[in-house]
Amino acid sequence: MRHEHLVQLRWSDPDSLGHVNHARALSLIEDARLAMVADLPGEPGLILARLEVDYFRQLYYRTGERLVVRTVVTRIGTKSFAVRQELVQDDEVAIHAVAVMVTFDFATDSSRPLTDAERAHWSRYLGGVTRQ
Amino acid sequence: MRHEHLVQLRWSDPDSLGHVNHARALSLIEDARLAMVADLPGEPGLILARLEVDYFRQLYYRTGERLVVRTVVTRIGTKSFAVRQELVQDDEVAIHAVAVMVTFDFATDSSRPLTDAERAHWSRYLGGVTRQ
Amino acid sequence: MRHEHLVQLRWSDPDSLGHVNHARALSLIEDARLAMVADLPGEPGLILARLEVDYFRQLYYRTGERLVVRTVVTRIGTKSFAVRQELVQDDEVAIHAVAVMVTFDFATDSSRPLTDAERAHWSRYLGGVTRQ
Amino acid sequence: MRHEHLVQLRWSDPDSLGHVNHARALSLIEDARLAMVADLPGEPGLILARLEVDYFRQLYYRTGERLVVRTVVTRIGTKSFAVRQELVQDDEVAIHAVAVMVTFDFATDSSRPLTDAERAHWSRYLGGVTRQ
Repeated sequence: MRHEHLVQLRWSDPDSLGHVNHARALSLIEDARLAMVADLPGEPGLILARLEVDYFRQLYYRTGERLVVRTVVTRIGTKSFAVRQELVQDDEVAIHAVAVMVTFDFATDSSRPLTDAERAHWSRYLGGVTRQ
Repeated sequence: MRHEHLVQLRWSDPDSLGHVNHARALSLIEDARLAMVADLPGEPGLILARLEVDYFRQLYYRTGERLVVRTVVTRIGTKSFAVRQELVQDDEVAIHAVAVMVTFDFATDSSRPLTDAERAHWSRYLGGVTRQ
Repeated sequence: MRHEHLVQLRWSDPDSLGHVNHARALSLIEDARLAMVADLPGEPGLILARLEVDYFRQLYYRTGERLVVRTVVTRIGTKSFAVRQELVQDDEVAIHAVAVMVTFDFATDSSRPLTDAERAHWSRYLGGVTRQ
Repeated sequence: MRHEHLVQLRWSDPDSLGHVNHARALSLIEDARLAMVADLPGEPGLILARLEVDYFRQLYYRTGERLVVRTVVTRIGTKSFAVRQELVQDDEVAIHAVAVMVTFDFATDSSRPLTDAERAHWSRYLGGVTRQ
């Protein structure tokens, strides 16, 4: 199952060239990841460990427009999992990202195994052929 | 007529206290002002000259939630006009702002009179009793 | 005594017109307020209640440049105080702000009187003639 | 030669967990890349095509602290080059990034070969063993 999350750019997101700043666009992709966590019971306890981002097209701010972020899970390990995300504008993938998330125990400041509930949760989004 | 514009917070908007940062909230209010400009023909040529903001309640990020920004015009002068804006969450006004906008000619780097089209445009939103 | 704090703009702060976005500039001014709190013992317990900002000049990003924020306290009340702040570039005040801070008890979610230590702390910065 | 650039975090950079937001930290790294461009004559004409980021340690905001971003060039191709960057706090690398930059002609909206001046410029920072 693919997760979809709607996001909105802001007028202040483009930089002086008129293109949405590369780093601010990543906040939209982050929101999609956190939307997936929202219906998981308990404290998330997740850390972003690695991010690979390909910028394919410029993104533009348009008043009131909402963009979709599509996310699938590509790998579930013992103490981490990976998602592949796409931010789409005008039916074209503008940004493609792979994020590696580590399940983390903030109390002991160290990684921890995924719980069964987490494994079941993220498995719902395991999807398709990994592009990488 | 009151203008309404829907905006979205981001997970990264709250600060370390869990409340949406005061400055980032102003970007949402800015988006509402620019949405009002969007259907005005030609280059906007507007500068924000003054902002008065009252913070009444904390704002919280919730996945997928959209907040409304309500805007009315409170004064139209020769070379400037003022709007009153409210950012609403849970049916309560969290932020109340008054913004003074100056019509500006970037070519000569100086203020300029409102055009007739601008005066007609902003007059549509002239509204109600000024709270101030 | 006037408080001075050095801040840095970022390449991504200007918007598509090449001017530093009005809301992001306020983050620099916020940093100066928080720098004043840094040497105050205990939890700050402060809320920004009101902000009045005048935008006098455009701000520009220049690599490596640091700008100064000058702050004085203009009023100390029972449960609040006010500061006047200036963000300076090229020896000119680009932004002038008055911020009203309320001393706050997050545990009871209500305002509280300034402590004696707080009153003494902020009194050090009581300064000059209030411009307003 | 390694390029070094000093940057400053902001109080509003940490998220509700108290850690500097992963996307905002990338703005600091971006500033370092743009500082390297600053002494290159003419319009830069550069696009960020790919970013690989490893997050090793949490970053914390501390009043007045400046962090260093270290950058070396790892590869110079015909129409692109790559840099390796490190954002350091407390003498530890918190973020390691590899950025692939494409030389771009905005007029024709397509990639273009590096000029001789660009090749000479970036070659000055060619450094060490490529970690990748």
